[in-house]
Amino acid sequence: DYKALDQIIIGVCGGDGIGPAITGQAQRVLEYLLADDVKAGKVAFRVIDGLTIERRAAENAAIPTAVLEELKKCHVILKGPTTTPRKGDPWPNVESANVAMRKELDLFANVRPVKIPEQGIDWTFFRENTEGAYAVGSKGVHVTEDLGVDFTVVTSQGTERIIRAAFEFAKNNGKTRVTAVTKANIIKTTDGKFLDIFREIAKEYPQIEADDWYIDIMTAKLVDEKRRKDFQVLVLPNLYGDILTDEAAEFQGGVGTAGSANLGKRYSMFEAIHGSAPRMVDEGRDIYADPSSVIRAGAMLLAHIGYNKEADKLYRALEICTVKEKKLVITGRNTGATSAAFADYLMETISNMN
Amino acid sequence: DYKALDQIIIGVCGGDGIGPAITGQAQRVLEYLLADDVKAGKVAFRVIDGLTIERRAAENAAIPTAVLEELKKCHVILKGPTTTPRKGDPWPNVESANVAMRKELDLFANVRPVKIPEQGIDWTFFRENTEGAYAVGSKGVHVTEDLGVDFTVVTSQGTERIIRAAFEFAKNNGKTRVTAVTKANIIKTTDGKFLDIFREIAKEYPQIEADDWYIDIMTAKLVDEKRRKDFQVLVLPNLYGDILTDEAAEFQGGVGTAGSANLGKRYSMFEAIHGSAPRMVDEGRDIYADPSSVIRAGAMLLAHIGYNKEADKLYRALEICTVKEKKLVITGRNTGATSAAFADYLMETISNMN
Ligand SMILES: CC(C)[C@H](C(=O)O)[C@@H](O)C(=O)O
Ligand SMILES: CC(C)[C@H](C(=O)O)[C@@H](O)C(=O)O
Repeated sequence: DYKALDQIIIGVCGGDGIGPAITGQAQRVLEYLLADDVKAGKVAFRVIDGLTIERRAAENAAIPTAVLEELKKCHVILKGPTTTPRKGDPWPNVESANVAMRKELDLFANVRPVKIPEQGIDWTFFRENTEGAYAVGSKGVHVTEDLGVDFTVVTSQGTERIIRAAFEFAKNNGKTRVTAVTKANIIKTTDGKFLDIFREIAKEYPQIEADDWYIDIMTAKLVDEKRRKDFQVLVLPNLYGDILTDEAAEFQGGVGTAGSANLGKRYSMFEAIHGSAPRMVDEGRDIYADPSSVIRAGAMLLAHIGYNKEADKLYRALEICTVKEKKLVITGRNTGATSAAFADYLMETISNMN
Repeated sequence: DYKALDQIIIGVCGGDGIGPAITGQAQRVLEYLLADDVKAGKVAFRVIDGLTIERRAAENAAIPTAVLEELKKCHVILKGPTTTPRKGDPWPNVESANVAMRKELDLFANVRPVKIPEQGIDWTFFRENTEGAYAVGSKGVHVTEDLGVDFTVVTSQGTERIIRAAFEFAKNNGKTRVTAVTKANIIKTTDGKFLDIFREIAKEYPQIEADDWYIDIMTAKLVDEKRRKDFQVLVLPNLYGDILTDEAAEFQGGVGTAGSANLGKRYSMFEAIHGSAPRMVDEGRDIYADPSSVIRAGAMLLAHIGYNKEADKLYRALEICTVKEKKLVITGRNTGATSAAFADYLMETISNMN
């Protein structure tokens, strides 16, 4: 219970590319919503710089040590996008900062809601966030020059906690169905373990329907407009969660519209799931970057730490400013609307709420 | 060149469940189209029984030895669906017959076309078919009771041949773009190797645009109606190919509408990609099963062995009988239309063609 803390420390870790710009706007909006409690010292914001690809490359670390220390002093973190090196990029083999943060802070549950009310879609994905195909990163083995091997690692404990989180969420939110997604017909040892444990835990929740599908056919089922609305809560190993949530977000309007909660026992981190768009920065266009996704992540953060009223207001304002009144949606240079103008508009919209 | 053979031997391996019933109808249609050459002894059909889950379980083999021997006597194979055991099924740990056949006959290229002309969609997927996440099957390791490890294996040779097949197809079919799909930002050793080799081979085809995307965002791109039609030829490691082709087939009308070519240097196998529907057999409804998908696989087979005119006729007849004149689409008991009636209708339609 966060409200029981003397002070809730919210880390704002901008990342790089357009990250610092849009995260800064999200911070303005959150500070506005929490103004009284910030003044009273109940909530403090802490800006954490340095999670940039240059620093990471220089230290040859997914997360620079100093940054990790700062992160660990916070209770919850709002994170901007970070640059994940691609093959051929000018960086050495630096690993993903997202993935490292999930592991370092043991953020085992990646919770991604996708809602399209007018289509009856209300999905909540519980993606395992610390193991599976993501376990070894660059530590696969080049057995010979012509033979490469990667490892997928699944533990009982790691699987149990994500599956239990999914069922608990279902139980506490009036959901009647939890669906596991694996490829246990082929990836027999690890996905098989995941599915076995899913079926075991499902027995503890007899009032909830538990079913499972293979990831290949599941990507087809999400397309099927008649049947997809029947899914409610989905629980998946890391890689399938990565894949299926991008597809799902696209039906909602794209990955740019989706926020993502990374939850652990001690820490929680909320992030946009789009990229760092370094080219916008190079061209001086980062002040025009659309902050709505990281602001949405901020709304998830508010709800998570118990500021439900404030979170609701923010969701409603986002709805008004991005969907109902299209005029001020950020479209960059063309409209001349900046990230800051968008944040102003959100706050003005909130101030007019009863 | 098949036409140079004294006799082309077409194996018809029904599989189990509804497989033998629908494959039998496909054989009737192919025999009708090839009647002259069958009579002249240029083409022979050979029915291969025994690829059933019961036999496989009894021999504890993905493919019974006798069946494998028969398969190896053919040049091309038309395969019905086979039952892949699910966790909790009454079979021991029998592995997938599809996957085993791909490996045993070294059918390294799984070619899956998806076409929706009215939407401008004309995709051809080249899925690597013998290694990747499918390499080890049930031979992952239970390190302890609580720790399971699976292996993903990628070789240079296995990667080169599938990527080269994709580029050669593009070159020979007037395509201007080949797209690789990996998760090389995370699965660095094996997907990284796949992407490296893709970029190397792409240099040999300077007239073809080569780009690459990560599998997560790719599932979203296929949903995007404005941009998806720009993809032409896609080449993917085994698991991503499995996943993405099911999603893609859904836009075309479901996996039931898609045929799949499994091509190697010595053998080729053509299959429907739907399941064996054992319940239809239990309920005595297999005579009503829809054979259109395995017949479509038969059309791919005809084109592959050089009977292009016959293949075209069959494609056109399928189009007429399944899309243009819905009345005889198989819908089981309700319409009373059987698989055999559907095949009759196809042959009648072909006989009326000029
Ligand atoms: C950027 C990438 C490493 C990351 C992932 O693969 O998890 C992203 O796709 C996500 O879903 O958060
Ligand atoms: C049935 C299954 C083993 C198979 C696969 O995973 O390859 C199927 O999904 C396919 O795509 O042909």
